Amino acid sequence: MELKSKSSENIGIVGLGLIGGSLGIDLQRMGHSVYGLVHRESTAQRAKERGLAQIISTNPNILRHCSVIILALPLAELLNPSPILVEALPLDAVITDVGSVKNPILNTWKQLHPYFVASHPMAGTHQSGVEAGVKDLFKGKPWIATPEEKTNPKAIETIKQLAISIGAQWITAKADIHDQAVALISHLPVLISANLLKIIAEEKDPKTLRLAKSLASTGFSDTTRIGGGNPDLGLSIMKSNTQSILELIKLYKSSLEELESKIILKEWEALKEELENSKEIRKNFLNKQV
Amino acid sequence: MELKSKSSENIGIVGLGLIGGSLGIDLQRMGHSVYGLVHRESTAQRAKERGLAQIISTNPNILRHCSVIILALPLAELLNPSPILVEALPLDAVITDVGSVKNPILNTWKQLHPYFVASHPMAGTHQSGVEAGVKDLFKGKPWIATPEEKTNPKAIETIKQLAISIGAQWITAKADIHDQAVALISHLPVLISANLLKIIAEEKDPKTLRLAKSLASTGFSDTTRIGGGNPDLGLSIMKSNTQSILELIKLYKSSLEELESKIILKEWEALKEELENSKEIRKNFLNKQV
Repeated sequence: MELKSKSSENIGIVGLGLIGGSLGIDLQRMGHSVYGLVHRESTAQRAKERGLAQIISTNPNILRHCSVIILALPLAELLNPSPILVEALPLDAVITDVGSVKNPILNTWKQLHPYFVASHPMAGTHQSGVEAGVKDLFKGKPWIATPEEKTNPKAIETIKQLAISIGAQWITAKADIHDQAVALISHLPVLISANLLKIIAEEKDPKTLRLAKSLASTGFSDTTRIGGGNPDLGLSIMKSNTQSILELIKLYKSSLEELESKIILKEWEALKEELENSKEIRKNFLNKQV
Repeated sequence: MELKSKSSENIGIVGLGLIGGSLGIDLQRMGHSVYGLVHRESTAQRAKERGLAQIISTNPNILRHCSVIILALPLAELLNPSPILVEALPLDAVITDVGSVKNPILNTWKQLHPYFVASHPMAGTHQSGVEAGVKDLFKGKPWIATPEEKTNPKAIETIKQLAISIGAQWITAKADIHDQAVALISHLPVLISANLLKIIAEEKDPKTLRLAKSLASTGFSDTTRIGGGNPDLGLSIMKSNTQSILELIKLYKSSLEELESKIILKEWEALKEELENSKEIRKNFLNKQV
């Protein structure tokens, strides 16, 4: 089928949580007609009250009207999509997703739809559910697409224009580069941070534990924030980006052993150099001007 | 010598950085006369302009007027104090410190002064230097003292009243319990966080690194904040709380290996349980109501 394109589209959003709901708010403001598909009647009701889309239903058939469809579903559902959903997607619509791991999604979806564009809008993940969507969530945030050679250029362009229209910063990368990069800045940190919390649970002395609890402050809170986040999301990430994460755990362990050995051997000058390097790396890494 | 006590004291502060400067501001507001001792003439000048104490000098002799003296110095200087400073401390004054590791400080200072009370006011450490001091820094924050049986009770009471008067929450603990607790919630996290930054530097693929940099956001920034902090402070901590830290690194490594093995063996249910536990621990640990 031939791909159509209009300036004001009928856009379908599957799932109206933080990402889907926020997209619904922004895309309606851009003049599009937004069709929201949700699992439960109660969610549909609340999403209507919040105005997350013009048409909201639990019936996949509403997607038949749409020329662009965004699958704003949890990673697990993206990797194992319901056949009814796949069936309801028009063959001439452009389809994209919002999953935080791209290789397995691309491999699944390129077999399911001719105009699939794998993408990952980066946005906060503390909130979830139908109450979470807010306007301007994507403003100034990266929206990474991971097209392959075979991905339809017009389909890519459609998603690009959609992302840019709501203020996101469009980036393309190979799926495996994406998955390695997010393993580095997000997935490994989740595990490292969760493991710090695991250590707390292993402290057996009640006096130490009580004092530690009364002293725990912003430093502890910041370092453990992503490790104490949504377990379902954490699990899907570990399940779907396994190889990159395992490689980084290996690196992390041997690097930690180097630091440990410097402490054991009292190589203080070398340890100081490591801490100075870490400070420098962070400064450089978080300075987006460069 | 007998210990004197007055409601309005002459208080000496050695060092007018974040902690010393903030104490100077608050203690002057409480009606005390504050004497500030600093290393450099230029610091004295700036501290005078900022009003961090009434009397500010580079001459240790100003401490001779003081009945309470707070050593607001970096850990390294507290552990290896200048003989001139020690000489200048009146024998009938109450002396306290602000160091973040207590056992080695207590062991050093109990031999140097009869009225030494080891203490650790908890407060942010991002800022430092003569510009860093602010009012109300200690309000609602824990101020932990680690007295021994031999510590003079009247000296403890003097520091307690001083801490409470500026809004801090007074806590006492054994020095080794303190050092173990801060290793858990602060010193281990510094190392774990610094090591995440070290891993970044080991990523050799420029494309991955460039993408990782453009995607790094609040999650990465929070998790690496304390690891990218002051290298001198980090080093002093590792040097002075070595044993507790090494024990925790050992625990951390074996716990990380458990997580790693769950990923390798695809024990997803068990991994999900770990992530759920971590979430629960954090919630419970940061809930100060309990």
